[in-house]
Amino acid sequence: MLYKDYTKEQLSAEYEKLSAEYNEIKNLGLSLNMSRGVPCKEQLELSARMLDIINSSVQCQTVDGQDCRNYGIMDGIPSCKALMADMLGVTPDMVMVGGNSSLNMMFDTIATFMTTPVIEGEKPWYEVKNRKFICPVPGYDRHFGITEYFGFDMITVPMTDEGPDMDMVEELVKDDSVKGIWCVPKYSNPQGITYSDETVRRLAALKPAAKDFRIMWDNAYVIHDLTDEEVDLLNIFTECKKYDNIDLPIEFCSTSKITFPGSGVAAMAASENNMAVIKNKYKYQTIGFDKINMLRHVRFFNDIDGMKAHMKQHKAILRPRFDIVLDTIKANIEEYGIIEYEEPKGGYFVSVNVLNGTAKRVVGLCKEAGVILTGAGATYPYGNDPEDSNIRIAPTAPSVEDLSKAMCVFSVCCKLAAVEKLLNNN
Amino acid sequence: MLYKDYTKEQLSAEYEKLSAEYNEIKNLGLSLNMSRGVPCKEQLELSARMLDIINSSVQCQTVDGQDCRNYGIMDGIPSCKALMADMLGVTPDMVMVGGNSSLNMMFDTIATFMTTPVIEGEKPWYEVKNRKFICPVPGYDRHFGITEYFGFDMITVPMTDEGPDMDMVEELVKDDSVKGIWCVPKYSNPQGITYSDETVRRLAALKPAAKDFRIMWDNAYVIHDLTDEEVDLLNIFTECKKYDNIDLPIEFCSTSKITFPGSGVAAMAASENNMAVIKNKYKYQTIGFDKINMLRHVRFFNDIDGMKAHMKQHKAILRPRFDIVLDTIKANIEEYGIIEYEEPKGGYFVSVNVLNGTAKRVVGLCKEAGVILTGAGATYPYGNDPEDSNIRIAPTAPSVEDLSKAMCVFSVCCKLAAVEKLLNNN
Repeated sequence: MLYKDYTKEQLSAEYEKLSAEYNEIKNLGLSLNMSRGVPCKEQLELSARMLDIINSSVQCQTVDGQDCRNYGIMDGIPSCKALMADMLGVTPDMVMVGGNSSLNMMFDTIATFMTTPVIEGEKPWYEVKNRKFICPVPGYDRHFGITEYFGFDMITVPMTDEGPDMDMVEELVKDDSVKGIWCVPKYSNPQGITYSDETVRRLAALKPAAKDFRIMWDNAYVIHDLTDEEVDLLNIFTECKKYDNIDLPIEFCSTSKITFPGSGVAAMAASENNMAVIKNKYKYQTIGFDKINMLRHVRFFNDIDGMKAHMKQHKAILRPRFDIVLDTIKANIEEYGIIEYEEPKGGYFVSVNVLNGTAKRVVGLCKEAGVILTGAGATYPYGNDPEDSNIRIAPTAPSVEDLSKAMCVFSVCCKLAAVEKLLNNN
Repeated sequence: MLYKDYTKEQLSAEYEKLSAEYNEIKNLGLSLNMSRGVPCKEQLELSARMLDIINSSVQCQTVDGQDCRNYGIMDGIPSCKALMADMLGVTPDMVMVGGNSSLNMMFDTIATFMTTPVIEGEKPWYEVKNRKFICPVPGYDRHFGITEYFGFDMITVPMTDEGPDMDMVEELVKDDSVKGIWCVPKYSNPQGITYSDETVRRLAALKPAAKDFRIMWDNAYVIHDLTDEEVDLLNIFTECKKYDNIDLPIEFCSTSKITFPGSGVAAMAASENNMAVIKNKYKYQTIGFDKINMLRHVRFFNDIDGMKAHMKQHKAILRPRFDIVLDTIKANIEEYGIIEYEEPKGGYFVSVNVLNGTAKRVVGLCKEAGVILTGAGATYPYGNDPEDSNIRIAPTAPSVEDLSKAMCVFSVCCKLAAVEKLLNNN
């Protein structure tokens, strides 16, 4: 029976029951963290052998004989460019391999455009005082953090189950102070939505008023499946080419959730024009990124097929965790009509909408009971979820046992917050 | 006998002789590179064992139990902060450990200040249209590259044998559009000069008109000795404190020339105020740098004493190379009065001044004979050496045998260019 159909007496009784349950779990003294998309220890172990690959008895040379231990090769060693090109779905000449963080490459890209024109004749974005960025919501807090840091007004566009609301996006890009859009096109953070063909085509066909409008295509979860289903995403560069828009997208990916979150390899891909601006910056910024680590990755995976086989092992570890989250929601919460959720086929999160106006309370109750969730509102620019409804659940880090406990806590807190709210509304 | 005292006939005879020698060496088909401060293969081998230290059978945990393979610890693991603090001569709380490149941290620092006020109330440097930076010359081309990229007017100040001409520096900082100075205070690039106590004190005592003036203290060669002599450099933070100037310097160092140039660890140190601004940027830029590599370094060296012992092995490899350069100059060129040079006690370069107006010609002649030197003028902002005299010799990369050959080529080219010049002046 739905909570909204409960009488006041029934709600009061439910409140008493849930309060008692909540006090019980609070006394368990749990200390669990589900706040970030952090791989668990078993996942890290999958790549432990990678640390053996480069040692004092092996050659550290590139295919063309350059010593990876020394200076140079600013845009990455050729074999690693080829590997990351296959991840990104582009040719190696479009790729630059960076350090350990694709976030850092995204930050660097926006930073570059702040002080350097994206294309000749346009102003560096610093000079566009009312600069704006389109932020599909819910979305990734660290994306929003970058554009907030650089002083963009962030304009939210709701996600549909096909990606960002493209009617709104098409309307917004008529404003030439709108300079870009953040996209996680496959298994989006946090909902796990993969953009439909139509969405990708409409993005590729955009004719923004700002000639220096760019699509930040963060393909963070490009091979991060949770099911055996082939989930296809159209290639953004192929589509953009059809609309004479090859300069529109800049794509990013990394091995942070493939090998080691702190010691992976990040890469980006872009058109010749974009890459010229970006590399002209990097050549002043660094002599080159860590090539030994690039070589380590290449020798560990050999090629994209090796990487994809590796991802099946991740899936085997992660699938049961996502099942716990979804099964708990279905078994314990769904019947009361106070939760909506996506069943992701990949990525790192389960996104739920709890009863409007209760997300902060749920997160707060969980915290008091020793379960840290992503802060309510974090999936919105400025941390402001107007409905106070969206919560991102990150089930990868805890053990299966801890996760079960944490989801029990979450269930009780969701219900308790909902009942409180309904009682107060009466 | 000095060339300047040669008669025209003597010069002509010398020209014929040197031309013949030059043609002979040109026919040897050499292909040697002395253009950059690149460690040689033997130096890289000194750290080969570091690659064995982290492998699948060891724990990758910090002293406080955090897994270095995973996300987090934005400013570096505590043990590595402690190690780098000892290099930088500061306490660990002043340190942030970054990726593999101190150049990148310097670039990031200037980039940060371009769009964010260094201190509250000041304009981000982007808004200071006539922004200027003090560049001691000769100096490091990549420093000049950063300030050129960000649109600073670069004001040159000559190096004396005690560091930058402080009379000029003190005068220049009266202009509030002068925002900083590049310093390589120990074994400077390219001359190998260590700033005198008086120079450090006068820098520390500066009262620049610009409240957001900063000293970029690139301590790249802090333990990179070439002799057994203890060469002391005053601690810039200690001195600055005496003058209530703790926010003035930002210090940088790395292990690029200690372990691996492409896979070292970089760090920076700054006051609490500066670090707050810098870390507030980094927290949007990255979740953290490569902590496995930090751990690798810490376990390889244990502490600063381990690192200093390691540097003695570098010295043993490098000292003979520097001797070849200096001995060749003394034996083959000095007597003609066409060269001035420093005898560095550390660092990576020998800086020479050839006859005014002949540096480009010498570098060109060398190149034609198969010996690549740093481009003439590279040690000056915009590549413009007004005297066309300074040449940076980087003797570390070639083998001892190749270096001897290269220095023979260099001798002939120096003399040939000088004689040409003197003949043309007559």
